Parts: sequence; structure tokens; C-alpha cells
Amino acid sequence: MVMAKARAVDGPDKAFRSAEIKRRELDEKDVLIEIKFAGICHSDIHTAHGEWGEVSYPLVPGHEIAGIITEVGSGVSKFKVGDRAGVGCMVDSCGECVNCKAGEEQYCLKGNVPTYAGVDKYGEPTQGGYSTHIVVTEDFALHIPDGIELDAAAPLLCAGITTYSPLHHWNAGPGKKVAIVGMGGLGHMAVKIANAMGAEVTVLSQTLNKEEDGLAFGAKEYYATKDPETFEKLKGRFDLIINTVSANIDIDAYFSLLTLDGTLVNVGAPGEPMSLNVMSLIGHRRSFAGSMIGGIQETQEMLNFCAEHNIAPKIELISADQIDEAYKRVLASDVKYRFVIDTSTI
Amino acid sequence: MVMAKARAVDGPDKAFRSAEIKRRELDEKDVLIEIKFAGICHSDIHTAHGEWGEVSYPLVPGHEIAGIITEVGSGVSKFKVGDRAGVGCMVDSCGECVNCKAGEEQYCLKGNVPTYAGVDKYGEPTQGGYSTHIVVTEDFALHIPDGIELDAAAPLLCAGITTYSPLHHWNAGPGKKVAIVGMGGLGHMAVKIANAMGAEVTVLSQTLNKEEDGLAFGAKEYYATKDPETFEKLKGRFDLIINTVSANIDIDAYFSLLTLDGTLVNVGAPGEPMSLNVMSLIGHRRSFAGSMIGGIQETQEMLNFCAEHNIAPKIELISADQIDEAYKRVLASDVKYRFVIDTSTI
Repeated sequence: MVMAKARAVDGPDKAFRSAEIKRRELDEKDVLIEIKFAGICHSDIHTAHGEWGEVSYPLVPGHEIAGIITEVGSGVSKFKVGDRAGVGCMVDSCGECVNCKAGEEQYCLKGNVPTYAGVDKYGEPTQGGYSTHIVVTEDFALHIPDGIELDAAAPLLCAGITTYSPLHHWNAGPGKKVAIVGMGGLGHMAVKIANAMGAEVTVLSQTLNKEEDGLAFGAKEYYATKDPETFEKLKGRFDLIINTVSANIDIDAYFSLLTLDGTLVNVGAPGEPMSLNVMSLIGHRRSFAGSMIGGIQETQEMLNFCAEHNIAPKIELISADQIDEAYKRVLASDVKYRFVIDTSTI
Repeated sequence: MVMAKARAVDGPDKAFRSAEIKRRELDEKDVLIEIKFAGICHSDIHTAHGEWGEVSYPLVPGHEIAGIITEVGSGVSKFKVGDRAGVGCMVDSCGECVNCKAGEEQYCLKGNVPTYAGVDKYGEPTQGGYSTHIVVTEDFALHIPDGIELDAAAPLLCAGITTYSPLHHWNAGPGKKVAIVGMGGLGHMAVKIANAMGAEVTVLSQTLNKEEDGLAFGAKEYYATKDPETFEKLKGRFDLIINTVSANIDIDAYFSLLTLDGTLVNVGAPGEPMSLNVMSLIGHRRSFAGSMIGGIQETQEMLNFCAEHNIAPKIELISADQIDEAYKRVLASDVKYRFVIDTSTI
């Protein structure tokens, strides 16, 4: 058993505190990762605040994890001590259902095991990356290519794959016009990745406040959605729209921006049901789809792709004592563009 | 100019009456069709009742038209006098936009010209198929293959293509599990066509009342959606669901029946906005799409496909005097499965 230091929260409106947590004894297929950096995802906040259903406290969030392998089980073949490694949103799945066999473990029919607020195969609660160490089966660990700094690698494990996967699945590439709705942690990665895939990228953000950044990240155009003329001007323009905004938006207005056979993909979900006019879809055979992170093999492809194209998130590095403040700033959309915890400060 | 007999309606709650309408002088590319049969589509009722926006009365509905060519313009090359011909939901489009050039005239960016309740290129209101004659450009007329009876051919021009197009577009075929929601005019055609395409077809109907027919039309299984166990049993089963029901249903329950990457396609639209939980899509990368009739070339392909596979709608032939009664019976779902007017009785 490994004792790890961590930052945990004891209830929906509690502050983070120092904690010691147990990581399991290494199985023959397990690796021990010394965590160096952990990103702060909006999901961490929803879960910590109990907004996504009941949670067992104390809770250690964090599913954007980057570090170094410090120990490997006897049967480990994919990693060795000293390797740079990452863990994303899930740490296990059944491995036997049709989706797992297709490399889509995120859609495991029995439900994947989330990195925190889940229950592992030994019946123990999972705890996330706001910690110094984690034990995970090698099949759910990722190699972080040398070309990516470890602190910048962390957010790729959720924000990166969550946007890469739908862009890849719906064929973003040369000749395709892609719009990204929202320029936060997910949105700014989507802009960079879609641009690197060769698509023509437009950002649709509430205001033009982040326009300069958006264009620097690779967007060709940047529009404010507060301006109704935006919707008139861009009518029927896009082959693909990736909506990174979890709030309930006027989705019909966004459908009208799709071309024939265009698809709008939500990677976040509002807490409330969404209302839409089916005629918005019927009119031009449009599709409304959802997508959730990506499979393990695809996550590795994404990391390799980002290294090859020199893509990294723009981050703000913080110490463990700043987590509560960082949560407040995320909720106020005051982060450019992802907080990453330096876990040496835990 | 051709004077045609017709059955017209003068307002949302008026009965049909005999009328004489003018059909335009034949352009060089026009054909004159002596209409033999006209199907009654639910859209006719919505439009006649003014439920789909303002309508100019008197109105002659009907966009499921089958007849014989009796005259052709000097420049007509695709038809000759005596040919069996049909007209569907549209009679013209711009011909120049990207969608028209792709053979998707139904999605014309300037809007196609509907067969009735529209305005043609001469600025005249269009009038539909509850009539003895119609003049239409040859590019929007269809050849009805010899293998299909004219009365049965009529409903193919809307109910047939409306279901064939999404089944074809979303690759219904061998190895695919397809569910058809609703067993009315559209639904019963969808069952026959999907089965002929080689898919494994399941009907999801409110009750089991039409089970015997559904199985005879080619469905392998038939379930009542009134029974909550249906949704438990069929969870994650279907690659494709075609929803032919225009009423507002619990769409999330139907999404749960889709497999990974499955698509639910609505071919009808409820009058009210629809509410859905985006997590139903995100959970298994599902899509919610809409589809509207089909292009002219695709409609011809559909007619040829139906002839080749010996597929025809099951119809109830009525006289022109029975239109009002037929409308009431359609609204009561009391038709197996499409009313067709014998226009010789007009």
C-alpha cells in the first residue's frame, strides 16, 4: 500500500484540506505514478459541489493527471520506471463488452470506472489527481510524448481528448468549416486541434474579449454570439459545430449555422433538459450529437498528435493552497485557459 | 391554359367542395399529367387546417400524385404522351444552389416550390393533386415503373421517399438493426423498405393492435411502447431509429434504445418544441437527426427500388366525396394505411 498526500473536500460547500489517502498495493498489471501536475476541470467542481448526484466525501477530484512512473507490477509490459505517464477521466472498464473491444472504453456497457467518485474492481472508492501518487492498471495509463511539457500535458487528458475525439470522429480536416462554441478550457483546445487537423476554424463566443487569443490559437474568424447579426451572417456556414458550453443555449439558432448534413456535437450537458425545434434538424438533414472524452487508444493518438503539431493548452500554474480560489475563478470564467496544480505543493 | 376539376377547401374548418382551377400553359419543358390517383398525407390536413402557418384559400392539397402524361412541351426529353408519371412534394427549385446541384432539391437554399400552398416561378399559387390535371416541369416529374399499380404508386411520392431517403442515407441494410416508430402511412412504408434493404426491422407502436400487419410487412419484432418493459428490454439495441410520429414523445427513452453511434431520425416534427436531455446523446455518442422527403433522383431510385422489390403501400381507395371523412379518420389513426383518392370521381 502507498500512502499519498492529497487535497480533499468534505462536502458540497467545504474548503479543500490536506489529507492522506491510501493507494492500493500494485497488482501485476498496475503502475504507480508520482503525480507532478493535475488540471482543474469544470467537472471537478460539479462533482465536489455534489451537483452531479450523490458523492462520497472526503473526495479527491482530478482527472487530468501527468507524472512519472516510479514502480511497475510484475506483469507490466507497456511502461517502465521513469516513463512520463498520464491518467485521464477513467481508470478501468469491463474490457469485454462490444464497446470496450472496439476501443471505446468510455462507452463501456457496464460503465467505465471514473478516476474519482467511482468504485474500482476491488470495491474501493476511486480518488483523483489532486494528490502525489496514483495506482492504475497500465491499460488505462497513457504515454506522454517527450515533446509535451508535463504541466501542459495534464489538461490534454480531459480537455484535449474531449475535443479531439469528436473533431476526429466527424472528420474535421481540410475543406471543412468548423465552429467552436465557447473559448474556455475545452474551447481553446478545440480551436488548436481543429486548426492542426486542417479545418477552417471559427470561434463563437459570447463576446469578443478573447478574440486575439482565439486568432492566435488558429481560428480564422471570431464572432460574438451576443450580436444577433452573427447568426444572420453565418447561416448555413459550418459542416461541424463543437459546443463546449454546458449552459443551456438557444440551440436552434446554432443549428441554423449548419450546412446540409452538418452536425452539432455537444461535449457538455446542461443540468436542465434542452428545448429544440425538430424542424431545425429536418430542414437541412442536420444532426445533433453528443460525445464523451475518448477511448484509451484514441487518447494516446491525441497526445501523439499534439506533440507532432506542437499543441499545448495555455495554462495557469497554481499551488495546492489556491484550489478554492481557482474554483471560484473557473465559475466566473476567469481563467486563461486551464488551472493546473503543481502537486509538489500538496 | 388547362382548366382542371379539383376539390378545394376555403378555410381551416370548411368542408371540401368542387372547384375548377387553371393550370398554366405548357412551357417548353412542361408536361401535362392527367391525374388518376392522389394520396392523402397528414401534411395535407395540417395545411388545410392552417396549422402550419398562413395559407391562401381556396386550397387544393395533394402531393402524392400518380397519372398519365397527356401532353408535353416542345423541349421535353424525359417523357412522352402516355407515360405513367408521378409528382411528389415539390414542383420546382432554384437549380443553382449547392444543394440543388447535389441533387438535394428538397433542401434548396432558396426554398423548393411545394406542390401546393406555394408560389411558382410565375408568381402563381401552386395547387395540388386533388384534381384531374397538373402541369409541371419535366425535371420534377417521376417515371412510375410498370411494376407498380398507379393507385399504390401515389403514396410512394411522399410516404415512400420520406422513409426511403433516411433509411438509405443512414445505411439501413444487412447487419443493421432498425426500429420504426409508428405504424401509420409513413411507418408501414418504412417497415417494407427497411426490410427490403436487408435490415432487421422492429416496430415500436403504441399498442400491439397492428402487430400482425407489421410482421407481414417484414418486421421481425413488434413492441408496444405503452409497455415500459419494452424500453428496458430493447436498451442499446438499434443502429437506426426512424421516428414517423409527429406528436411529442419522450425522446430520451427512444435514444436509450440506440447502440453506440446510433442515430434517431425524425421525419415528422411536433408543432411544439421538443425537450431532451443531452446526456442521452453524450452517453453513447448518439445522434438526433431530421430528414425531409428526398431529392428527385433519389425519388426515382426509390420508385425503381419499390418496383424491383415488389413493394407498395397498403391503401384504402376513396372517392372525392369522402375526403372530409377521410381527414377525420386520419386524425383518429383509423386508416390502413393510406387513403388514396380516385380522381375520376372529382
